[in-house]
Amino acid sequence: MKLFFATSNSNKLRELSKLLSCSLELFPVDLQEIQTTDLQQLVKYKLQQAFETLQTPVIVEDTSLYFEAWNELPGPLIKWFLENLGLSGIVRSLSAFENKAAQAVCCLGYTEDGKTMHFFEGTQEGTIVKPRGSLDFGWDAIFQPVGQQLTFGEMDHELKNRISPRAAAALKFENFLTLQAKQR
Amino acid sequence: MKLFFATSNSNKLRELSKLLSCSLELFPVDLQEIQTTDLQQLVKYKLQQAFETLQTPVIVEDTSLYFEAWNELPGPLIKWFLENLGLSGIVRSLSAFENKAAQAVCCLGYTEDGKTMHFFEGTQEGTIVKPRGSLDFGWDAIFQPVGQQLTFGEMDHELKNRISPRAAAALKFENFLTLQAKQR
Repeated sequence: MKLFFATSNSNKLRELSKLLSCSLELFPVDLQEIQTTDLQQLVKYKLQQAFETLQTPVIVEDTSLYFEAWNELPGPLIKWFLENLGLSGIVRSLSAFENKAAQAVCCLGYTEDGKTMHFFEGTQEGTIVKPRGSLDFGWDAIFQPVGQQLTFGEMDHELKNRISPRAAAALKFENFLTLQAKQR
Repeated sequence: MKLFFATSNSNKLRELSKLLSCSLELFPVDLQEIQTTDLQQLVKYKLQQAFETLQTPVIVEDTSLYFEAWNELPGPLIKWFLENLGLSGIVRSLSAFENKAAQAVCCLGYTEDGKTMHFFEGTQEGTIVKPRGSLDFGWDAIFQPVGQQLTFGEMDHELKNRISPRAAAALKFENFLTLQAKQR
């Protein structure tokens, strides 16, 4: 089975390809994102656009990073914080708050027909720390999952892909596809 | 002359009504906003939606607050900072940075036919300070314009309406309407 993955982020494609047993084909597109802190609403909006363009089964994905001290921020707006403040600027902005707890959420959206939409979420609790490890992939270097000594940026792919929110979302999606295949 | 103003913000309507000589009619709608730090692009997107719904000359408006230390943030995303961090949380997040310089920008978008779109921008430089004065209107209480001792939140309407970015944008729009009336 081959699936289109609509994203402009090659890191996400690389990771998701390892997590899913089906073959992913990149549909390189920068989908319009709406202003919201509701991750599923955002993914739904992206999924609608992707299907309108492709007219074939497609998945989209978005990941949010919520700081407990900042309520719903950065949330799905994290990419603007990364672009403008950078990792150090984010950590510095949060330095005035004692509470460094954060929640990372990944939401996969999937549709076959553009009508029925399925969403699969994975969550990981953690702490925001000064950047450690690889700086290549989003906020990985400042997120240390609960119960771990390493940030996502310091982990090898194998470990990260066992505990990341993307892995948890991918597992739910896999189970859905397996169940669906049995029912056909 | 009567114009529709598409907004969900009654404070903006009140202020703009005082700044413009034409009569404004509220079109109460919460327009979809896209994720961007480009204010004019955002206003354009809102204007398209407003015209599609109303099919009559309409104005929309958006205001951005840029912190020099944060590059393009909060920018047009300021409303999410206000909702989630609040004024005190915003000031606290910026407290780790020495540079408190900020730029407030208001952009008015106007279209008669949904095709030709006009944009009018007003800008004011200032400093981010601890909240002072009325907390009723957005970020007014934490923005102290350059050359002033008061925040927008401490000023009476008359003073604010002489120097605010909204006033500067409204003046440009007024001039445009006057010129247009002469040419007809």
